[in-house]
Amino acid sequence: MIIDCHGHYTTAPAALQKFRDEQVAGLKGGVDIPLSAQPSISDDQIRDSLENAQLKLQRARGTDLTIFSPRASAMAHHIGNETTSQRWTQACNDLIHRVCTLYPENFVGVCQLPQSPGVAPVNSAAELERCVEELGFIGCNLNPDPSGGHWTSPPLTDRHWYPLYEKMVELDVPAMVHVSSSCNPNFHATGAHYLNADTTAFMQFLTSDLFKDFPTLRFIIPHGGGAVPYHWGRYRGLAQDLKRPLLGDYLLKNVFFDTCVYHLPGIELLLKVIPVDNIIFGSEMVGAVRGIDPETGHYFDDTKRYIDALPLSEADRRKIFEGNARKVFPRLNGHA
Amino acid sequence: MIIDCHGHYTTAPAALQKFRDEQVAGLKGGVDIPLSAQPSISDDQIRDSLENAQLKLQRARGTDLTIFSPRASAMAHHIGNETTSQRWTQACNDLIHRVCTLYPENFVGVCQLPQSPGVAPVNSAAELERCVEELGFIGCNLNPDPSGGHWTSPPLTDRHWYPLYEKMVELDVPAMVHVSSSCNPNFHATGAHYLNADTTAFMQFLTSDLFKDFPTLRFIIPHGGGAVPYHWGRYRGLAQDLKRPLLGDYLLKNVFFDTCVYHLPGIELLLKVIPVDNIIFGSEMVGAVRGIDPETGHYFDDTKRYIDALPLSEADRRKIFEGNARKVFPRLNGHA
Repeated sequence: MIIDCHGHYTTAPAALQKFRDEQVAGLKGGVDIPLSAQPSISDDQIRDSLENAQLKLQRARGTDLTIFSPRASAMAHHIGNETTSQRWTQACNDLIHRVCTLYPENFVGVCQLPQSPGVAPVNSAAELERCVEELGFIGCNLNPDPSGGHWTSPPLTDRHWYPLYEKMVELDVPAMVHVSSSCNPNFHATGAHYLNADTTAFMQFLTSDLFKDFPTLRFIIPHGGGAVPYHWGRYRGLAQDLKRPLLGDYLLKNVFFDTCVYHLPGIELLLKVIPVDNIIFGSEMVGAVRGIDPETGHYFDDTKRYIDALPLSEADRRKIFEGNARKVFPRLNGHA
Repeated sequence: MIIDCHGHYTTAPAALQKFRDEQVAGLKGGVDIPLSAQPSISDDQIRDSLENAQLKLQRARGTDLTIFSPRASAMAHHIGNETTSQRWTQACNDLIHRVCTLYPENFVGVCQLPQSPGVAPVNSAAELERCVEELGFIGCNLNPDPSGGHWTSPPLTDRHWYPLYEKMVELDVPAMVHVSSSCNPNFHATGAHYLNADTTAFMQFLTSDLFKDFPTLRFIIPHGGGAVPYHWGRYRGLAQDLKRPLLGDYLLKNVFFDTCVYHLPGIELLLKVIPVDNIIFGSEMVGAVRGIDPETGHYFDDTKRYIDALPLSEADRRKIFEGNARKVFPRLNGHA
């Protein structure tokens, strides 16, 4: 079985964005549009949105199940206030639930959280619990920068975040560290902000005792870990200079990397330096890069091809494609 | 000849930091300590600071000339006001000039700029001109985020920066894009902020027409280009999706990467994906990572060893170790 740990519903029916647009327009007049104002979306509209996109690509690429979450760039936690974020998040998560109900063999849910700048992360715990306990979701996406590129929240290792981590541990679900769009003109979302956040989170983890406080807390750092594997020597050296434990003895018990790296040399490097137990197959399709690589004739984000091209043992291949996902997302085992 | 394009004076005599400490202390009382208040530093103190550090390592590693600039993390453009930054910058640059005068065979200068948040970059042009015309420097370090981790300046591709670029073009000197310390607790300086800035700058360049406006403007992106080479497929794909020119046809005429990547697999990747004409040898010694890698028994930042381990042609090796530096820093040719 081949599990893709990183897919967003980037092709959702237009009615979802229509609700968001109305919500944002309402904010200008001081109105919080209620969830009941959502335009209806039919099952057929959901099927149409997936059949020629994620489902077609699953079949073409030979993957089975996508761990599926709302569109990351649309989370935009910086827009509006806590109520705005609560309602938008619920709308997005409910739609993911409908996808997973229509296609239980193909998708399993991971939720967006209703974060908001300056709002305590514990306020996201109820939506996480609803998604896991009532909708059958198996994890969440956690935005380390709800301000959208201004980085005004405390680091992920600050006690500010601990009450949410307590809920994650209680529910036994991991978080993917995933920022959203950037409203700071310095940071292109998919070309800089995403990768910077990955790198930033890793270094926060490296310099803290977070995983002494939460030995079973688990994070996936997406986009192949940002800059981290390329600079693995730098991180081993910094850990040593800072008198931190060896990365393999501490950090790598709790931190995992996906394979959203869109060329073979990058995946080769990832597999060369990061232990196989810490690598989880992901493609982020249909996502940041949608074209075909003229150098290979295949989609840039068809990351399975890069892994298939490497001389891995069958046991290692199984870990990357299935086993590690089942370890990091234990609730997956109730699904598939 | 082997030229290291990336060295900072991290071992400067303590009197330099004493001046800085007094400057910062003065700010609290609203006093701008004048440059004349600097404690004196003798030539012997300068020699002592280098003989057992950079000079010893040059000899041990077999490198000849270091392109040398003030300590990057100490630039701290966010401290104080424009006057603070002007004076601190002049003190740091003058000391680099003394190093280069004492050891003309071993060091050639690159200057810090007196940037300050909210201050027009053109205000750095006079110090750049002084350093190049009077002190014989061959380039500058440009901080894309003088706020120190809050990223409040416009992107490097904004016209905000153009008057400084005009001076760079007039003087025919490149800039290394190099942030300083971070006062945002999210960003560890050498483990996150530096690499994020590298990645950020590259994507800014990718999405703009800056090099149409300045066809001869040249930037070095340090630390092996941040996350960029590891995600080279992502960047090729983003350029294609955004209808930008092929990276080799546009960006790579003006943007170069150093080799400050502290393990062999990283350097292998860099050489595999980035054209050899765009790679300039650098080590950043004595810098971010000072220890010995227990896996190799050699210093993490002895990047020459990694390059030596690769099966490069002699012509390519010469480009990386000398030729590309001479192209990007044409004023080098007056020195060595």
